[in-house]
Amino acid sequence: MAGLSTRHLLGIKDLNAADIQLIFETADNFKTVLNRPIKKVPSLRDVTIANIFFENSTRTRLSFELAERRLSADTINFAASSSSVSKGETLIDTVNNILAMKVDMVVMRHPYAGAGIFLSKHVKAQIVNAGDGAHEHPTQALLDAFSIREKLGDVAGKKVVIVGDILHSRVALSNILCLKQLGAEVMVCGPTTLIPKYIGSLGVKVEHNLVKALNWCDVANMLRIQLERQDIKYFPSLREYTMLYGLNKQILDSLDKEIIVMHPGPINRGVEITSDVADSKQSIILDQVENGVAIRMAALFLLAGQNP
Amino acid sequence: MAGLSTRHLLGIKDLNAADIQLIFETADNFKTVLNRPIKKVPSLRDVTIANIFFENSTRTRLSFELAERRLSADTINFAASSSSVSKGETLIDTVNNILAMKVDMVVMRHPYAGAGIFLSKHVKAQIVNAGDGAHEHPTQALLDAFSIREKLGDVAGKKVVIVGDILHSRVALSNILCLKQLGAEVMVCGPTTLIPKYIGSLGVKVEHNLVKALNWCDVANMLRIQLERQDIKYFPSLREYTMLYGLNKQILDSLDKEIIVMHPGPINRGVEITSDVADSKQSIILDQVENGVAIRMAALFLLAGQNP
Amino acid sequence: MAGLSTRHLLGIKDLNAADIQLIFETADNFKTVLNRPIKKVPSLRDVTIANIFFENSTRTRLSFELAERRLSADTINFAASSSSVSKGETLIDTVNNILAMKVDMVVMRHPYAGAGIFLSKHVKAQIVNAGDGAHEHPTQALLDAFSIREKLGDVAGKKVVIVGDILHSRVALSNILCLKQLGAEVMVCGPTTLIPKYIGSLGVKVEHNLVKALNWCDVANMLRIQLERQDIKYFPSLREYTMLYGLNKQILDSLDKEIIVMHPGPINRGVEITSDVADSKQSIILDQVENGVAIRMAALFLLAGQNP
Repeated sequence: MAGLSTRHLLGIKDLNAADIQLIFETADNFKTVLNRPIKKVPSLRDVTIANIFFENSTRTRLSFELAERRLSADTINFAASSSSVSKGETLIDTVNNILAMKVDMVVMRHPYAGAGIFLSKHVKAQIVNAGDGAHEHPTQALLDAFSIREKLGDVAGKKVVIVGDILHSRVALSNILCLKQLGAEVMVCGPTTLIPKYIGSLGVKVEHNLVKALNWCDVANMLRIQLERQDIKYFPSLREYTMLYGLNKQILDSLDKEIIVMHPGPINRGVEITSDVADSKQSIILDQVENGVAIRMAALFLLAGQNP
Repeated sequence: MAGLSTRHLLGIKDLNAADIQLIFETADNFKTVLNRPIKKVPSLRDVTIANIFFENSTRTRLSFELAERRLSADTINFAASSSSVSKGETLIDTVNNILAMKVDMVVMRHPYAGAGIFLSKHVKAQIVNAGDGAHEHPTQALLDAFSIREKLGDVAGKKVVIVGDILHSRVALSNILCLKQLGAEVMVCGPTTLIPKYIGSLGVKVEHNLVKALNWCDVANMLRIQLERQDIKYFPSLREYTMLYGLNKQILDSLDKEIIVMHPGPINRGVEITSDVADSKQSIILDQVENGVAIRMAALFLLAGQNP
Repeated sequence: MAGLSTRHLLGIKDLNAADIQLIFETADNFKTVLNRPIKKVPSLRDVTIANIFFENSTRTRLSFELAERRLSADTINFAASSSSVSKGETLIDTVNNILAMKVDMVVMRHPYAGAGIFLSKHVKAQIVNAGDGAHEHPTQALLDAFSIREKLGDVAGKKVVIVGDILHSRVALSNILCLKQLGAEVMVCGPTTLIPKYIGSLGVKVEHNLVKALNWCDVANMLRIQLERQDIKYFPSLREYTMLYGLNKQILDSLDKEIIVMHPGPINRGVEITSDVADSKQSIILDQVENGVAIRMAALFLLAGQNP
């Protein structure tokens, strides 16, 4: 069987179209497994995976943990708050110590962009990036594209608009790279203050008017406003943001066609999206969560197969 | 096999006498299992249970986790402090997201009364209430009644006094409902400030004098004073409480008959109960803890059997 | 098979030379297992172990958890921060409650010296001390001595210097007892303020000059300065400490022979040891971590065999 072209999953940047295709086909199989009464496969029975989270993340951590559990891997969990990190240890030392205990793979979330790349150059384990600062969140982009493919049959040729804080979002960057790689047309939409200057170089359209953007697209991915990140000073204010870029049922029903609505979660209901939109038939938000486990099973399974 | 009359375990309120009887008989079997060298059964091998604790609780969480482990269930743990909750997500969204990952059952502790009931109306999973505010704590009441039955042969006709802060205690309410359902006579005992006005409507006697209450009963369940809950302003003071309602060996030995002493834990030794009482032969406090695992195994096992 | 002479592992103090030899030979076997593709053995399949940590410790906790996992034991984890401890429960009650849930063994870290010994006298389970205050940390000493034996063929007759804060270090005390028991010569080195007055009674040499100490020894165990312990007021200051007792490459290369460098971790790079020393060929720091899992498997396995 042909494998992935990479030993790590650091970002969509490192994946070619064949890699993504292989991950999707593998995820198709695992999704079948997840819908059986017996949801477990013995594939990674002798693989030990360390989940190292230097940032809180319930849904991503639980999704990875369940994926690992379904693959019968052994897992150990490590949260920064209860860790040697507070004792002044370096990232490389922390990870090398965990690896010395015979761990095969590291799933890592870290607040700094590039932490996974840095680590992959200095330690022996395979690294899976579960989000690094404002840089990449590859499994999120894969599950998003997988969910579009599931709903619309294909990603190629589809028009996807990503709405919100593009500047601080690793989800946005990974989504753009993944969708472009698969042949979709991508637009970003938000206030000028939240759209990075370099966006043009990614081959992406920019639109500041929400309704125009929505009328153009097949799929709208509504990013969350990260209320918990005190370091982000939002301009416009939250109230203005909601008035200009919040998606409500009235707007959704006024569009020329029935678009699909996505959200990476957790949702701020009433901010970037209203409840009636989040819970509407056009929303595939819970499908995204469900597909997350299958995509992560696929990625971990294929990476484990890379080892000699 | 006849099953429970309910899909969820939200409170004792929803259980009829046959339900409780069925849980007890199932727990009898599991207690036999727990006393074998091999303590595991494969009953829930393909069931995934999420333990969602919005409030700290070592003993209840460990007891549920061990029960799930002994039943061979897959478990995922979710504590509010490290969760999306701090990111502003609603309870329904949090739980729906966990469910989308193919979780079958949710064991939840929540600081607000009625949280489990609310959730059971809005999500598809089976909910087991592991304590909701000052409302109910059904598995605690079941294990308490089970421990009385184990010690005295039967609950019906027995006289049980619950001593302490009845007003803020979910243990008290669930115990009253469970004991009444099983035909016991129930009395509550404590200062007027800690006994709710509606207590009469539950068919319960009230007694403010500890010695009188103890001389009436077969079993005394000494509730703990919740020192950690800053929102409760105790009147009388802790020192006065201990003088008036603390159970010591002198009082215990002065009673007309040998009563049984219970405590839901964790114990404040020297406050509601002295060490010599807690560790005396009349105390069944550690039996309660041991029976907790068997009762929770029984409840989870029976609920899982409710699914089509 | 001859077993250990003790039911608990509270400190090196309780082990005789034959015990240590037995642990080492058992660890040799487990180390072979850990280097196989299938790293698990079914030895403790029906043993439940509670890891009770009243102090943070990533590496020790993960090492024990992995050891338990490799032995197929069931484990439950209990961290003080999320525990009944904050509700005012006593240590004995906490542990007795966990034991009532049919737990066989307790691995405990506690900030107070003697906590494990105290507990072993009051509860029925077997206690493994994973560090108690400034008292003992027996598995660390065992893995350190095991690593010296692995590197140099034997511990007897070898010269080991322990450098740093001997006064506040449980690692130092356990190491001294273990190395002496195995026939090594032991020296401690550090500023007078960090060397306890009673050190002479342990049959240990004292040297305040780092270079002299290093020129004497075969092995240097560089303790970490515990930056996170606010209760320790260091004199000399950190900067002076590094100048006087920090090991750098220049010093290492100037010595008469090639000594072995150890560190219990986590390392403060640039404080007690520089990066080029920590990562040099003479360093066996990561071997120590790797051996930690094998030593802990051996200890848990042998203790479990003590039960009737």
